[in-house]
Amino acid sequence: MIRTDGRTADQLRPVAFDRGWSKQAEGSCLVSFGDTKVLCTASFTPGVPRWLTGQGKGWVTAEYSMLPRATNSRSDRESIKGRVGGRTHEISRLIGRSLRGVIDTKALGENTIVIDCDVLQADGGTRTAAVTGAYIALADAVEWARGKKHIPAKATPLTDSVAAVSVGIIGGVPMLDLAYVEDVGAGTDMNVVATGSGKFIEVQGTAEGVPFDRTELDSLLDLALAGTTELTRLQREALES
Amino acid sequence: MIRTDGRTADQLRPVAFDRGWSKQAEGSCLVSFGDTKVLCTASFTPGVPRWLTGQGKGWVTAEYSMLPRATNSRSDRESIKGRVGGRTHEISRLIGRSLRGVIDTKALGENTIVIDCDVLQADGGTRTAAVTGAYIALADAVEWARGKKHIPAKATPLTDSVAAVSVGIIGGVPMLDLAYVEDVGAGTDMNVVATGSGKFIEVQGTAEGVPFDRTELDSLLDLALAGTTELTRLQREALES
Amino acid sequence: MIRTDGRTADQLRPVAFDRGWSKQAEGSCLVSFGDTKVLCTASFTPGVPRWLTGQGKGWVTAEYSMLPRATNSRSDRESIKGRVGGRTHEISRLIGRSLRGVIDTKALGENTIVIDCDVLQADGGTRTAAVTGAYIALADAVEWARGKKHIPAKATPLTDSVAAVSVGIIGGVPMLDLAYVEDVGAGTDMNVVATGSGKFIEVQGTAEGVPFDRTELDSLLDLALAGTTELTRLQREALES
Amino acid sequence: MIRTDGRTADQLRPVAFDRGWSKQAEGSCLVSFGDTKVLCTASFTPGVPRWLTGQGKGWVTAEYSMLPRATNSRSDRESIKGRVGGRTHEISRLIGRSLRGVIDTKALGENTIVIDCDVLQADGGTRTAAVTGAYIALADAVEWARGKKHIPAKATPLTDSVAAVSVGIIGGVPMLDLAYVEDVGAGTDMNVVATGSGKFIEVQGTAEGVPFDRTELDSLLDLALAGTTELTRLQREALES
Amino acid sequence: MIRTDGRTADQLRPVAFDRGWSKQAEGSCLVSFGDTKVLCTASFTPGVPRWLTGQGKGWVTAEYSMLPRATNSRSDRESIKGRVGGRTHEISRLIGRSLRGVIDTKALGENTIVIDCDVLQADGGTRTAAVTGAYIALADAVEWARGKKHIPAKATPLTDSVAAVSVGIIGGVPMLDLAYVEDVGAGTDMNVVATGSGKFIEVQGTAEGVPFDRTELDSLLDLALAGTTELTRLQREALES
Amino acid sequence: MIRTDGRTADQLRPVAFDRGWSKQAEGSCLVSFGDTKVLCTASFTPGVPRWLTGQGKGWVTAEYSMLPRATNSRSDRESIKGRVGGRTHEISRLIGRSLRGVIDTKALGENTIVIDCDVLQADGGTRTAAVTGAYIALADAVEWARGKKHIPAKATPLTDSVAAVSVGIIGGVPMLDLAYVEDVGAGTDMNVVATGSGKFIEVQGTAEGVPFDRTELDSLLDLALAGTTELTRLQREALES
Repeated sequence: MIRTDGRTADQLRPVAFDRGWSKQAEGSCLVSFGDTKVLCTASFTPGVPRWLTGQGKGWVTAEYSMLPRATNSRSDRESIKGRVGGRTHEISRLIGRSLRGVIDTKALGENTIVIDCDVLQADGGTRTAAVTGAYIALADAVEWARGKKHIPAKATPLTDSVAAVSVGIIGGVPMLDLAYVEDVGAGTDMNVVATGSGKFIEVQGTAEGVPFDRTELDSLLDLALAGTTELTRLQREALES
Repeated sequence: MIRTDGRTADQLRPVAFDRGWSKQAEGSCLVSFGDTKVLCTASFTPGVPRWLTGQGKGWVTAEYSMLPRATNSRSDRESIKGRVGGRTHEISRLIGRSLRGVIDTKALGENTIVIDCDVLQADGGTRTAAVTGAYIALADAVEWARGKKHIPAKATPLTDSVAAVSVGIIGGVPMLDLAYVEDVGAGTDMNVVATGSGKFIEVQGTAEGVPFDRTELDSLLDLALAGTTELTRLQREALES
Repeated sequence: MIRTDGRTADQLRPVAFDRGWSKQAEGSCLVSFGDTKVLCTASFTPGVPRWLTGQGKGWVTAEYSMLPRATNSRSDRESIKGRVGGRTHEISRLIGRSLRGVIDTKALGENTIVIDCDVLQADGGTRTAAVTGAYIALADAVEWARGKKHIPAKATPLTDSVAAVSVGIIGGVPMLDLAYVEDVGAGTDMNVVATGSGKFIEVQGTAEGVPFDRTELDSLLDLALAGTTELTRLQREALES
Repeated sequence: MIRTDGRTADQLRPVAFDRGWSKQAEGSCLVSFGDTKVLCTASFTPGVPRWLTGQGKGWVTAEYSMLPRATNSRSDRESIKGRVGGRTHEISRLIGRSLRGVIDTKALGENTIVIDCDVLQADGGTRTAAVTGAYIALADAVEWARGKKHIPAKATPLTDSVAAVSVGIIGGVPMLDLAYVEDVGAGTDMNVVATGSGKFIEVQGTAEGVPFDRTELDSLLDLALAGTTELTRLQREALES
Repeated sequence: MIRTDGRTADQLRPVAFDRGWSKQAEGSCLVSFGDTKVLCTASFTPGVPRWLTGQGKGWVTAEYSMLPRATNSRSDRESIKGRVGGRTHEISRLIGRSLRGVIDTKALGENTIVIDCDVLQADGGTRTAAVTGAYIALADAVEWARGKKHIPAKATPLTDSVAAVSVGIIGGVPMLDLAYVEDVGAGTDMNVVATGSGKFIEVQGTAEGVPFDRTELDSLLDLALAGTTELTRLQREALES
Repeated sequence: MIRTDGRTADQLRPVAFDRGWSKQAEGSCLVSFGDTKVLCTASFTPGVPRWLTGQGKGWVTAEYSMLPRATNSRSDRESIKGRVGGRTHEISRLIGRSLRGVIDTKALGENTIVIDCDVLQADGGTRTAAVTGAYIALADAVEWARGKKHIPAKATPLTDSVAAVSVGIIGGVPMLDLAYVEDVGAGTDMNVVATGSGKFIEVQGTAEGVPFDRTELDSLLDLALAGTTELTRLQREALES
């Protein structure tokens, strides 16, 4: 079975990490999963929010947003609507939790890193591209902070790497890294966030139409872990270049 | 290993469904999972939102909220803050998707059912209690609509039942239906929404601290399915009484 | 003249106070006036808002709200509309003033008590039920604070009790404690808040259609005071049980 | 007993009605009660809000607001805070109800009149000055509409006139039309809205400190009716000039 | 060419400054440019916003707003819409910058002056009338502060005066101080803010329809400077009276 | 006098137009003025807003926004603050007016084009880069609409081209196209929007510190027109490629 873009069921779209895209941020990465493009910037600030002060721990959080014309038809800006939508909130929280899953906040010290993930173009998998690119921006910001002595040379705030991928069942076949047209047609849709060492940080599976059984769930998890393993390899390459 | 409230690891808290608690709503249920109490009301209205008009399909949606003093310390009202928080949005969307997973919208006809889930008292598992109680309110509203001829006598909008439960790993041991004190201490936290026939509608697992491996994930899924099976039985009893 | 629910013109609906309904709050009461049910919780916090600091006085305030399906047809949540309506504001302020009318803030010390009155089911008289039930929750919170030594054993922050009732003229006849269908038909509608010793804290009379004269006003005041006297007796019984 | 501004207890402040102050509005009046100045404008529009369409009835509503520096210290604008305060809501509703108390909406036909009451300078009694001046603007807008044939020549939408005044107990003495410094010191504060024929539309009495008894209430009502009678006379003079 | 109100092309409308209109503010002026009437109040407060603390400098800012029925048809209140419109923001910022252009913030000391410009009646040129009247209110507030010793007797926070006027091209003819009907018909519209000594603080020219060339721009600037020179003379007269 | 980046006073920064950057929009351009990068997308929709319906005219509008980390230190998102700031509003309005200055809305027919200008990286001159790039996106959207027959083949909705540039006086010297560090130090700052044929659409000059005289204004206008002439040439090249 061949997909509309010629991929096999277990194949990722072309993935690219454009490190240092932004000159202003302490870490940045323009990540693309096919036509999905997300600009991830990491802003490092000494100090932590008031509720965390004095505990010797740092804070990592994320905000996700989409440009109004990232999608095929224009949507209204949340700034103009005056409120952040539920989907935006949900994805921002997911990215934040994913990054905190590989951060040792004690080693980070009382410093804050905010990751902004702005979707410039959307073609499915924006949240998984965002998590995967955000890790690159985060890693660069940690290195920057080490260089500036905000973090001791020996401290290792990053305990592992993290990547994310979507999987879904289309026409009965489990498929990896769904593009938008595939996502729309998927009966079950799952986003998996995993560490470089192959453990889960998040598993979010949703039956869009027909509920799924345990066997289907198992095959989706297998496929997703293969995908995050490949993404981990690509992240490592990008960070070594 | 015995839990603080005397339960075994695979035991639910006492579950109760107080059907018809509200005289105003077309269906209602005050559900309790231990000390967690959620008032679920179903509001039936002929007609659908404008974007769905003329397609011969109905609409089911949900809103979740918490009274300011449902928890141990008072939180500010979202109406006064002027915005709905991310957590509230996320849970409202989860409940809506869960209910739509067992609704045949064609059979519902062009009618709308809004389920309100207001947490009167919170002790962990508010979203899973809400899904489980919301199903009872939904089922009663569907019966009400059938009685009022808004839905044909032969139509069966409900294709299955739905229930939800939380599971987590505490001190290395997978446990069912976490109370608040347990939830706080859990390394991994998972909410599972399943149908009466044992299929998944949602699986949401999050590593709060340490990432989890495939084996742990499998044992949590086993435990959760056992829990939803028991909840399904209790729902059936409540609806038959 | 007999009313639709069989009451005489000067008769209250069945009144019940379910003290301690909430396990989380320092004081709580699920009050019902017939089918009107309001959950009142009192949250005690040491300290006062900044503008009151250092004056040796406490603060008591209230927030009123209604569940979306408390009424016969569902209304939108104020949290989702992003603003608190005028009616909600007005009633919250009325409850706060009523409670402060029987509080000696010096005796309370620099402590804050917030009373939340959430209408779970509405059938007329929600504000008067709220005031009457809020007093029970407030009294229990004061006792709790005394037990915890937040308030000296000898201090008596409560200088009196407070209760409220609605009265109205229907078909020319003054009637006590209007249910929703009666309220809709009333030409004049009055809410009276009075202390246990029979003095007024608030008198709010409104001509819904035809203006009312002094004689009508006098007969409404007589009826209202008889009602609050009875409510005061029932409050005392509830607090003694 | 002489008041700080030399008045006797039962004396109004100097009252002035500057009719037609605004050239843009269909009716307008800059009313002053001593140093309290309120600009009242009436905007007449053919047609009614959607919820009232087709019933052959008109609609009258009001909005009250205060300039940020109307008071002795500047307050933030509600437009900048992004929300209308409870007090503003409450007074807007009071003015609207008061005017509707003397309007025959059938005779008004399907037309809408919005009265804006903007406090330019505040020295106590802003709501009572607003009601009293709003009546003048309303009467002029009704005449304007008659002239423009929006209302039939024989229709009499105004069934009576309406005026309002504050009364309070200061140092045990009931006083009429409180200035700001008096209002602050009043133990009981009451606003009374009455028709030209001496009937009540609204009675709102509040114990600011010590609850008040029936005798005090009666003396306040007497004083208030004397005040509204005098205001009615002044309104008539203004409309005849 | 004679204008609808009989003015020549280079003639201002009748200008009046009613100083001290408000008894509450430290400086105030009801300014009128023909039928445009703006109430300007200056509120003086010792201290500065947090971001400016400790720099020995003061702060001057402005807020512009329009009453709902200042214009020919009523517009909704921004407080009720819950957000300040772009035009309001833009004009508030313009007034603030204009006043800061003639303030020596060091000489002002750590004090804040907020100027509120509320349009009571609008007939074109509300922003230019606001700037011109705001200067009067500002000057009086500075004098008030000097009298109260908030500013040293020798300090001269005002380095110059400031006035503003609109100009536009109508039917090919440059005209001064456009009334509303003229503004609507103008092809090019320019607002010029200038100091008493004839220098520019702001030049804002906009082609409403046809773009304008350098020659037209020059003639508009000439006309505007003649207008601000005349306004400067009138301001001086008003402040000397 | 050489500038920090080596330019002469009358030299633009390197300018680039990346046409068709977005695959989703009907027209798009990633414009850069040195390190300032703005993504401009044009969204074409048949039909016009309700207030314009039936007049045979189209509508062009613009929205400007900045990513939170486009600047050197992160700013809060307007969507999270819940309100659009004054500066954002002001620039959005400027871009919209500038584009409408070269659009013949009759020739556009009843169609709407919304231009989104999102600043991805900011180094001064974001509004002028936005106007200049928005014209490219607009021109491409008009061509797209012509190809799709939404606009007749012979219609020419674009009457001219439009470009914008900033100028300012730094150390007494007028300079073209200020980078951020220059803008901060400029005594006078002016943005000029001009057509391809050399006429003005907007002139906005502001004295940041010292007011400017007529001679300075003239030299700034000369410099700006030279800049927009060069930008017009570059736009033509980009559209011809």
